[in-house]
Amino acid sequence: MSQNLVFTNEVATALDTILDTKAYNRLAVIVDENTGRLVLPEVKSIHLSNAHVITIGAGDACKTLDTLTCVWEGLEQCGATRKSVVVNLGGGVVTDLGGFAAATFKRGIDFINIPTTLLSAVDAAVGGKTGINFKGLKNEIGCFKEASDVIISTCFLKTLSVEELKSGYAEMLKHGMLSNHDEFKKLLNYDFKNADAEQLLELLKTSVLVKEGIVREDPHENGIRRALNLGHTVGHAFESKALHGGKPIAHGYAVAWGLVAEMVLSHNILKFPSEDLHHLANFVYENYGAYHITCDDYDELLQLMHHDKKSQSGEINCTLLAACGDVRPGHVISDDDMRIALDIYRDLMHI
Amino acid sequence: MSQNLVFTNEVATALDTILDTKAYNRLAVIVDENTGRLVLPEVKSIHLSNAHVITIGAGDACKTLDTLTCVWEGLEQCGATRKSVVVNLGGGVVTDLGGFAAATFKRGIDFINIPTTLLSAVDAAVGGKTGINFKGLKNEIGCFKEASDVIISTCFLKTLSVEELKSGYAEMLKHGMLSNHDEFKKLLNYDFKNADAEQLLELLKTSVLVKEGIVREDPHENGIRRALNLGHTVGHAFESKALHGGKPIAHGYAVAWGLVAEMVLSHNILKFPSEDLHHLANFVYENYGAYHITCDDYDELLQLMHHDKKSQSGEINCTLLAACGDVRPGHVISDDDMRIALDIYRDLMHI
Repeated sequence: MSQNLVFTNEVATALDTILDTKAYNRLAVIVDENTGRLVLPEVKSIHLSNAHVITIGAGDACKTLDTLTCVWEGLEQCGATRKSVVVNLGGGVVTDLGGFAAATFKRGIDFINIPTTLLSAVDAAVGGKTGINFKGLKNEIGCFKEASDVIISTCFLKTLSVEELKSGYAEMLKHGMLSNHDEFKKLLNYDFKNADAEQLLELLKTSVLVKEGIVREDPHENGIRRALNLGHTVGHAFESKALHGGKPIAHGYAVAWGLVAEMVLSHNILKFPSEDLHHLANFVYENYGAYHITCDDYDELLQLMHHDKKSQSGEINCTLLAACGDVRPGHVISDDDMRIALDIYRDLMHI
Repeated sequence: MSQNLVFTNEVATALDTILDTKAYNRLAVIVDENTGRLVLPEVKSIHLSNAHVITIGAGDACKTLDTLTCVWEGLEQCGATRKSVVVNLGGGVVTDLGGFAAATFKRGIDFINIPTTLLSAVDAAVGGKTGINFKGLKNEIGCFKEASDVIISTCFLKTLSVEELKSGYAEMLKHGMLSNHDEFKKLLNYDFKNADAEQLLELLKTSVLVKEGIVREDPHENGIRRALNLGHTVGHAFESKALHGGKPIAHGYAVAWGLVAEMVLSHNILKFPSEDLHHLANFVYENYGAYHITCDDYDELLQLMHHDKKSQSGEINCTLLAACGDVRPGHVISDDDMRIALDIYRDLMHI
């Protein structure tokens, strides 16, 4: 397994260079309604100008078996064979669903990911997780198959809202904390909302390579890859609770708040430095606000954590840090410890 | 990648031994209407007696996305997680579709194949090809994922018709020819229709190991695995023509006749020994009869061969033999050479 990661804002040139080396017979590009309108015309690639365009609906609600079937049909219609190539140009829905379509068409054809959101660049486009939602369950059907090439850029980020940028930045924050203290500080001190494309690309590169290193060690998530779950046990519970309550929150926001709660746990259990915890909490509060919970919500949140799909045995399982870069996956957390952490999360978030 | 192949007629014992070592939390067994009725009750496995049974329709017409969706739903309903195991108990439809369902459920859970037909034992159950038909195209959607374990037996073959036995035996013949001259002769001299289960199991073991060796060298069919296509370029054309004409023929029969035609090509182009060609042709004629074609059918057959899905460029592509065991994949065959070969095929088949 080897995956070619290219960090550049010259996307068309990079794509043409890659495709020049591939003796493909058909090229299909998968976009959603937004990237088809806003991004595809901007990518002046010679190869792409002859590609068969397959457009899917935008948003997580379109990440379905029906959409997947339409993509398979689109590949049939353009005469794709095992020697064809798919380009996924979009956010996480396009790279996940398009990757799964390519991975299963004629038992697998090559695909190239060009993530157009910060979240998909930092998270979904690298690491080989593909899939769709099924029966209301996120990413329930899918497989592990890496894109042959990923072109990571920041030039499309101007098409995003500040909320979308922040959502992606939360995953970068997570990677920084998994990496080392310097990276963590650099991310906290950076005004990403006003960053130019080249500066952000440098930060993004470091962040993606952190993930890539972990995935390389454990492609199928049997061990160390669970480190990437940092912030997600509590984050997913917040996200699910918000969804059930009819007021969904963005994934990255949930992760940011989840990181705060899980660093409280890390402090209480593993002496994660108090100073870093407070810096993180302040940064998150300033940029993301707070997810409001009361003591009355604890039972529901604990219930959700016990049923998290990453939980093997019904126990609450968290990745913790003894310090930035000192990663301890697979901690079983008692209900009492989690309640205390949620209390302190509320204090730190001024709730 | 490593796959545990067990050759035994003590299927229940073998299955329990395997499952004793797996710390699974749910066990699902996928059967079709026939194997659910005839075979499942015969397998007195302790583990299997507690399994969740998922029954699908029998036959290639059921190898669809709808059936796949039902299997995914069945896995949801029994509470399967990444730590669950699927047992596929059936012929090629069950092992292909059940394997694909398992390979894509939560991005892949373990599955064990127990083929119940000779064809699936010798062909479909080993080698990691999973999939479903889509839009009338065979195995159009799928992926490469090996069963963790395959239990190969001959004790269920008594539930099969002679035609089903012959269909599987044609693939064994193919493996024998790919292997060496002794194996080829052994297969031609064997009265497989009256063989007992233990004797046939020995032959089957040799045959499966031939395939397994080739797959191990080239799991994703980029090179030498194409050797396994022996007999299939012409065979598929016969099969498709028969299907379009409303008189479908069994896959193995088509392969048997395809082997004869392709050994004619091998003789004409690579001096494959005439004696072996005649022995093969006689064996096939005696056991399978002939697939009747006339000169008027050649254009249609050539057309089908040019569009075979294994063809990369629209050329007719065959694996040929210079002798048994001397395999030469990737021969481009001219229309004229194919016409001559079909003429001689008709002579050999007394048409």
